Amino acid sequence: MIKAGIIGATGYSGGELVRLLGLHPAAKVQAATSRSYIGKTYNEVFANFNRYEELYLQEENIETMANECDVIFVALPHGIASERVTASILKHTRIIDFGPDFRISDASVYEKWYGIRHCARELLPQAVYGLSEIYRDKIRGARLVANPGCYTTCGIIALYPLIKEGVIDAGSIIIDAKSGVSGAGRGLDLGVHYDEANENVKAYKVGSHRHTPELEEQLSLAAGRDVILSFTPHMVPMNRGILLTAYANLAGKYTYELVYEIFNQYYKDEFFIRMTKKDVSPETKWVKASNFCDIGFTIDDRTGRIIVIGALDNLVKGAAGQAVQNMNIMFGLEEKAGLDMAPVFPA
Amino acid sequence: MIKAGIIGATGYSGGELVRLLGLHPAAKVQAATSRSYIGKTYNEVFANFNRYEELYLQEENIETMANECDVIFVALPHGIASERVTASILKHTRIIDFGPDFRISDASVYEKWYGIRHCARELLPQAVYGLSEIYRDKIRGARLVANPGCYTTCGIIALYPLIKEGVIDAGSIIIDAKSGVSGAGRGLDLGVHYDEANENVKAYKVGSHRHTPELEEQLSLAAGRDVILSFTPHMVPMNRGILLTAYANLAGKYTYELVYEIFNQYYKDEFFIRMTKKDVSPETKWVKASNFCDIGFTIDDRTGRIIVIGALDNLVKGAAGQAVQNMNIMFGLEEKAGLDMAPVFPA
Amino acid sequence: MIKAGIIGATGYSGGELVRLLGLHPAAKVQAATSRSYIGKTYNEVFANFNRYEELYLQEENIETMANECDVIFVALPHGIASERVTASILKHTRIIDFGPDFRISDASVYEKWYGIRHCARELLPQAVYGLSEIYRDKIRGARLVANPGCYTTCGIIALYPLIKEGVIDAGSIIIDAKSGVSGAGRGLDLGVHYDEANENVKAYKVGSHRHTPELEEQLSLAAGRDVILSFTPHMVPMNRGILLTAYANLAGKYTYELVYEIFNQYYKDEFFIRMTKKDVSPETKWVKASNFCDIGFTIDDRTGRIIVIGALDNLVKGAAGQAVQNMNIMFGLEEKAGLDMAPVFPA
Amino acid sequence: MIKAGIIGATGYSGGELVRLLGLHPAAKVQAATSRSYIGKTYNEVFANFNRYEELYLQEENIETMANECDVIFVALPHGIASERVTASILKHTRIIDFGPDFRISDASVYEKWYGIRHCARELLPQAVYGLSEIYRDKIRGARLVANPGCYTTCGIIALYPLIKEGVIDAGSIIIDAKSGVSGAGRGLDLGVHYDEANENVKAYKVGSHRHTPELEEQLSLAAGRDVILSFTPHMVPMNRGILLTAYANLAGKYTYELVYEIFNQYYKDEFFIRMTKKDVSPETKWVKASNFCDIGFTIDDRTGRIIVIGALDNLVKGAAGQAVQNMNIMFGLEEKAGLDMAPVFPA
Repeated sequence: MIKAGIIGATGYSGGELVRLLGLHPAAKVQAATSRSYIGKTYNEVFANFNRYEELYLQEENIETMANECDVIFVALPHGIASERVTASILKHTRIIDFGPDFRISDASVYEKWYGIRHCARELLPQAVYGLSEIYRDKIRGARLVANPGCYTTCGIIALYPLIKEGVIDAGSIIIDAKSGVSGAGRGLDLGVHYDEANENVKAYKVGSHRHTPELEEQLSLAAGRDVILSFTPHMVPMNRGILLTAYANLAGKYTYELVYEIFNQYYKDEFFIRMTKKDVSPETKWVKASNFCDIGFTIDDRTGRIIVIGALDNLVKGAAGQAVQNMNIMFGLEEKAGLDMAPVFPA
Repeated sequence: MIKAGIIGATGYSGGELVRLLGLHPAAKVQAATSRSYIGKTYNEVFANFNRYEELYLQEENIETMANECDVIFVALPHGIASERVTASILKHTRIIDFGPDFRISDASVYEKWYGIRHCARELLPQAVYGLSEIYRDKIRGARLVANPGCYTTCGIIALYPLIKEGVIDAGSIIIDAKSGVSGAGRGLDLGVHYDEANENVKAYKVGSHRHTPELEEQLSLAAGRDVILSFTPHMVPMNRGILLTAYANLAGKYTYELVYEIFNQYYKDEFFIRMTKKDVSPETKWVKASNFCDIGFTIDDRTGRIIVIGALDNLVKGAAGQAVQNMNIMFGLEEKAGLDMAPVFPA
Repeated sequence: MIKAGIIGATGYSGGELVRLLGLHPAAKVQAATSRSYIGKTYNEVFANFNRYEELYLQEENIETMANECDVIFVALPHGIASERVTASILKHTRIIDFGPDFRISDASVYEKWYGIRHCARELLPQAVYGLSEIYRDKIRGARLVANPGCYTTCGIIALYPLIKEGVIDAGSIIIDAKSGVSGAGRGLDLGVHYDEANENVKAYKVGSHRHTPELEEQLSLAAGRDVILSFTPHMVPMNRGILLTAYANLAGKYTYELVYEIFNQYYKDEFFIRMTKKDVSPETKWVKASNFCDIGFTIDDRTGRIIVIGALDNLVKGAAGQAVQNMNIMFGLEEKAGLDMAPVFPA
Repeated sequence: MIKAGIIGATGYSGGELVRLLGLHPAAKVQAATSRSYIGKTYNEVFANFNRYEELYLQEENIETMANECDVIFVALPHGIASERVTASILKHTRIIDFGPDFRISDASVYEKWYGIRHCARELLPQAVYGLSEIYRDKIRGARLVANPGCYTTCGIIALYPLIKEGVIDAGSIIIDAKSGVSGAGRGLDLGVHYDEANENVKAYKVGSHRHTPELEEQLSLAAGRDVILSFTPHMVPMNRGILLTAYANLAGKYTYELVYEIFNQYYKDEFFIRMTKKDVSPETKWVKASNFCDIGFTIDDRTGRIIVIGALDNLVKGAAGQAVQNMNIMFGLEEKAGLDMAPVFPA
């Protein structure tokens, strides 16, 4: 049984991680920490876990946890995880970081977008970007996995094969994404006060969202050249789910069937990536509470563009689910262990 | 492996049943029927099941299905199931009926509330009311189980111990319930058109909802006398969940602790019934997508009343989940097989 | 032009008051205060008011405002308004208080439910309870009007004629109410964080909500005897609206038509109270953004009870709209001035 | 008093038109027709209108109505309005058509996108496109106004000055729009069944939505060249509102201030177009139930693109409100008559 520790367990993605580990045949939560709820039991914080998680929330001590746990999931704000994780910690345990500190290989890019100094530059070379389907081989041997952002996961899955195969002009990418409110976390803020977010749609951080450099780095690697793209996130009034609509100019003449075949080459054996049929557009409701990412696309001959649409659950494939998937890869388990469930609908 | 058939598989409770059976270690869907989608695969109807249920939806033929399946779940409108199920069918298979036809032991009461003739009166004596926690022993040997209504399940669990132990005046019961919209099913109707149901609360079928006689029969059995009660259902703008608030006059002087102890006698070993702590009120979000029913109560000394609040997921403990629980009991499986999962939050 | 001041203008009911006064032919906002947004313009706080309210939010100074304004609307937490309002203030201006400080005539009852000392007991005798339809005559000459609570307004309108005419047993009243989330205000709190309130129903303050003594005082006055009742508020996932379901034992044999006639005697000339037709149940969507209160009822011969259902917009008839209605009465204006608009649907 | 007729009055935009005309100082509904509710009163269809619209819904007879009414608002499906409206009708009354039949000047383009023959080609030359702010002068003298689509209105307002002034490369436009569900109308359909639309986001009609040719014609006129663009509508779970995010390559080096100045030239005197301040993004909640269209934009130097965001209420500025605005222009009334109200928030 893999013993898992969770640092920052009382956010929404922490809660989802606890739920998924509870369903896992070969892993269990050994210890969990929280800044706000030290000494409480987990089900005092999240009453859905009554009958399940009676573990006490501890004060954070990553050294102790590293000795007790085979893997630690870290869900802390940017800039904190990189203070906690050290080479010494990584000798004792493996880390799957939900935050951005180890996602961007170039610390100066990180520092520009996040506005703080990166304090663990020396660990960046060994950090593996945890987009499971793309970096599976590297994840297998990794001790430090940077779990991708929710938008980023969806965007990369939607565009990676197209860029890799030169189907699209990498300079023309525009990503317009719509997220449920849980993406903003459980912290109180007027923007996610019920009456402010309900019955409302808005864009936010236009041109400046921090998932942008992460998208650009990964898609640049795929393209073999620098990719600069537009990314606009929106908040829509629902709890969970991301729908991402990506636009790009086709680099040549492509039929639907040809592009489908290209996607198929990359994803036909990927359990968690489901291509929709022609003229069927992904919807967030079909992936709720699951680790699936649904992908569909349209070839628009009028404009010479392709429109690719992806849907995932931001708390699962966009966070805790992919983290478990990465854990499974790291520990040589079946990749879908604990994640092999149909989405919940309607929910 | 128990082979399960589903008649009427393409409603919301049918979809939830398919999801739960997909998680079950000892049962699987052998065949499923639908009136509207004959010949389609299940995931064409419910795209969440891509990668899972590729079974073809058949035309209904209960005789054939009875030969192939160990158990048939019937999800048909009132008046139809009792036409289909016969003594002969029951020789070949077991039936768990989601509808009301076999819930009320007195056919004349059924006929009064449903306004139609009951056409299988001869089967009523062998039908067992499938409130798992109360009729477990009878369910074990049953071939025909009448799965309770969603509101009814919540109401009975909330009040049964109080009535049985004489804590409340059985003549004073008022039940005010609030349900998510999925309780109204997947059939098109202006009342459940998005813009009509969203941002709205309404009561419906005031004084005339058909779960009333079902509540009254069961609570009368508990009371050992005829119980007449008020029941008002409301529709609230959310997908899933029932919150039920029951009011009754206390039959004497009772402290919170004493009543808690009475509930405890009945429910302390019931996995799926979770009593909340004092001053903690059940909320539907804590039971979502699970088979739990949360119960809390308040003793109001000012008015001499008790207010009992119950919460469950109408599609799970209120329908498909309790059906699986009943199947487990009927087949001698562990009662929580396929149902042992923490609720999903936020969802 | 009536010059209106608003103390505590940046909550949801303050915003609604500003909107309604903006539509008023004979009143305008002269000054507004806020604790959190001093120095900002009103449309920086509520961007819907761009093109309209460019007034600066001032620091609170009730004396100055009393000199400048013909009427002051006070929207402060309980215990504060009674500190601010004095006999001297009332010489210079009129007060319409949104809070509870002057709603309950017996200070000891107030003190018991609110847990604080009442610091303006001497003003209680001159305070008029602002349920416009019932206290119109007293409101006309009042200098201090206690605007009723949102639940209370709905409950009193629903039950007043029945109690007054002895139709119901005043000892048997149970009120089960469902409110949209804006009733909880704009202050940050985990309970009204989007993902906590969305897709959820809960009861709160069971047996202890502070609108209870207000309901009891008013209904006692109607009954001519002490009324003790059960009141349970619930929060449902929508922005606005209250649906209130009241249960009571009929004091005799009453037909629907007879009770309808009784309601009609009280309300047939009341513009803002709309009786629904037989078998039509009020819904919150039909009163949205309006000052209407819709009332319907069912006579349940089986149980000998009447079920009365009321619907109103908690921010309008439950707060700012009734306040404007009271202002109109106090200043001898047409009672529906500024309020004569059809509800907005769908919204 | 302008006498208005409404053909097809019982959809959501019909309801909103009735509401707005009810607030209008110089117009009133003279007659209204419906296919589904002939003989009913309007408030039987929309109960929010109790106390207001007691008019009977008639069978459609445009000739009779043309004789009785100064203006007829037509809200019929595409292909029907062009069958009804004739030169003879236009001699007796003016027409404001909510549908698409007269929006596209080239009948062959209309026929390609709508898949039917246009049966009133001879009227196209006199039809005026009813984007009030742009075609005010032509609308003034028009007898046949084609009220623009909801998405189109938002898209044109967002982009018109930029195209007209050569700020953007007209070949690079991508429009990603998000609409509340009321945009789909009141007709029953599984896609707008509550549980299907709630807690879900989806794109629809990708690359094929019929507002595309309308956007392209208008923007081509502004550009003085043919504009081909990508337009993707999405449905988000809320009742009302459109948020539209438009992307385009800047044709040169532009600062925020310079572009703001360009918008200002076009819109500074437009009451219903509100430019947001720098770094403030429009949100649908700030325009709810009003005729405003809020516009904000971001210059993204990294990508050389501009992102323009527009928000409007699809039933008001996107339908009934702009229709009233056009009526005001046609009849020489103050343009904001009946429309001069702050948006409702929260709603």
